[in-house]
Amino acid sequence: MASDLRPPEHQVAGHRASADKLGPLVDGEGLFYKPLQAGERGEHEAAFYAAFTAHPAVPPRVRGAFFPRFHGTRLLPAPASPGGAPYPHIVLDDLLAGLQSPCVADVKIGACTWPPRSPDPYVAKCLAKDRETTSALLGFRVSGVRVVDARDGDVWRPDRSELKGMDAAGVHRVLRRYVSTCGGSGDGLDCALAAAVYGGEGGVLAQLRELKAWFEVQTLYHFYSASILFGYDANAAAAAAASSSSAPGGVRVKLVDFAHVDDGEGVIDHNFLGGLCSLIKFIGDIVAEVTEKASNIVYLQMSHIKRHQMERKSQVFERGNFTELPV
Amino acid sequence: MASDLRPPEHQVAGHRASADKLGPLVDGEGLFYKPLQAGERGEHEAAFYAAFTAHPAVPPRVRGAFFPRFHGTRLLPAPASPGGAPYPHIVLDDLLAGLQSPCVADVKIGACTWPPRSPDPYVAKCLAKDRETTSALLGFRVSGVRVVDARDGDVWRPDRSELKGMDAAGVHRVLRRYVSTCGGSGDGLDCALAAAVYGGEGGVLAQLRELKAWFEVQTLYHFYSASILFGYDANAAAAAAASSSSAPGGVRVKLVDFAHVDDGEGVIDHNFLGGLCSLIKFIGDIVAEVTEKASNIVYLQMSHIKRHQMERKSQVFERGNFTELPV
Repeated sequence: MASDLRPPEHQVAGHRASADKLGPLVDGEGLFYKPLQAGERGEHEAAFYAAFTAHPAVPPRVRGAFFPRFHGTRLLPAPASPGGAPYPHIVLDDLLAGLQSPCVADVKIGACTWPPRSPDPYVAKCLAKDRETTSALLGFRVSGVRVVDARDGDVWRPDRSELKGMDAAGVHRVLRRYVSTCGGSGDGLDCALAAAVYGGEGGVLAQLRELKAWFEVQTLYHFYSASILFGYDANAAAAAAASSSSAPGGVRVKLVDFAHVDDGEGVIDHNFLGGLCSLIKFIGDIVAEVTEKASNIVYLQMSHIKRHQMERKSQVFERGNFTELPV
Repeated sequence: MASDLRPPEHQVAGHRASADKLGPLVDGEGLFYKPLQAGERGEHEAAFYAAFTAHPAVPPRVRGAFFPRFHGTRLLPAPASPGGAPYPHIVLDDLLAGLQSPCVADVKIGACTWPPRSPDPYVAKCLAKDRETTSALLGFRVSGVRVVDARDGDVWRPDRSELKGMDAAGVHRVLRRYVSTCGGSGDGLDCALAAAVYGGEGGVLAQLRELKAWFEVQTLYHFYSASILFGYDANAAAAAAASSSSAPGGVRVKLVDFAHVDDGEGVIDHNFLGGLCSLIKFIGDIVAEVTEKASNIVYLQMSHIKRHQMERKSQVFERGNFTELPV
């Protein structure tokens, strides 16, 4: 089994595994192996997963919909160690399993990425990053993104320095590009998949709003430095968009990276919630843009008579007279 | 007119005016005069008020309900200057005008009190305060509070050092004490005014939720280091509580202190919104506590037969059979 393990093709953030370096692995059958991070962080993340999985106050729907399932820890041979000494890994669901052409975005949530009681040097280090990136300004930053063009299979994957230097306009652009089919062709972003991926009942926006409702009341954990991972299949989304389905059914929205989760101590995670609301506003604006554009196109395609009737109706509505007009 | 100006009796935060010191003044006829703060801060606050008052994208309902009305600036004699050289003041509605025994709380909102693009020394200074107080942990801190006991007129007003050293439990306690009638008598807080002041249609909680709905969409301003001021009249609230009215009609919830407001640049104020949601959770929990307690008391006061009927009904409901039972 272990011989089938390989670095995930679609990883967008974090260290990559190689012949002499630890990094996450997948088994191709739905499991994801994350090496324990150095210092206390790895132990802390494993302990979080164990506690979270068993916590009676976490609604099963929230745990199932928005968190990778935890399958315990497992020792795997470490690539760099001379005797091949085994190294502990956290075993999780592979969140991108089953996607043929996965489009992935990793968005680190929260204006502040350090737990308030961290030691000063750690605070200083994180704070500098939060101010250099968009975290402090937007309440989140895009840590990684991978978009596949469904037409030709071209992959767009900006490098880390490009993402780090991004301002608010850049983030808006990358969130539009994440749902565009013309990712490879310069500046014109069509947002052709926005309705299918971001909008609709099972879309990203609906899922983020459900997550928000939990964050408005949950006081168990503060998810400092955690990310939301988005995933969808480029081909499935393109097919859904072509048939005007509102959601391709396989849009994934999951929380990941829990090495800095803090005890909530009866207080909501205002830092994560604020950033989540900001992200919802960004994505909601993109959905509104395309919806508006779409209804304008429908309007222009209507016959002159239909349009005239609609205008008369809307004038009547504006006057506050809600009687239906004869068509 | 200027001779009637005096320091407000009920001020709970900020510098106090005296014979040789600048500080806010009231005229007793509904106006509040705030001396321009030193450096750029005072000019910045006056400019904010002028712009905000005229901004077409601010809903009139939000401006009217949650912000003091701005009446321009005015030069008033400065107490300490030798020749009595006039000093500019921002003229605002006196938010506590008309309250006979005002109970006031000043809550500074946001885990972070510094605009992200501030110079490093200013960030360091604010960050230290945010971490020493409850700001970083809770997303807000109580900067001042004044509670009048309606029965004997006793005033409870903790000093600043007491408020600064407060932890999460202390904040929960002070928010309960703010709506208790036994403020002066040790540890037993009755929360007798919680339903009248925090609960109900016009209460604090309903107003905070309305404010939150605006903060979820507004991208005009980021209100760093601003406060929400609560005000109610101890006598009116006690009368409302005695007659089980849900809101005394005069519960005030207003934003104040805009010396560090930043341009929103199309992004929501995730920092203020997160802190506001945390405050809503604290106050909502207090309302839930007293509502639960009240329904338990009603239940215990019911006759044995009524209680038995209720229990039968609820068992039936639990079984998923919603047919009404004959009483």
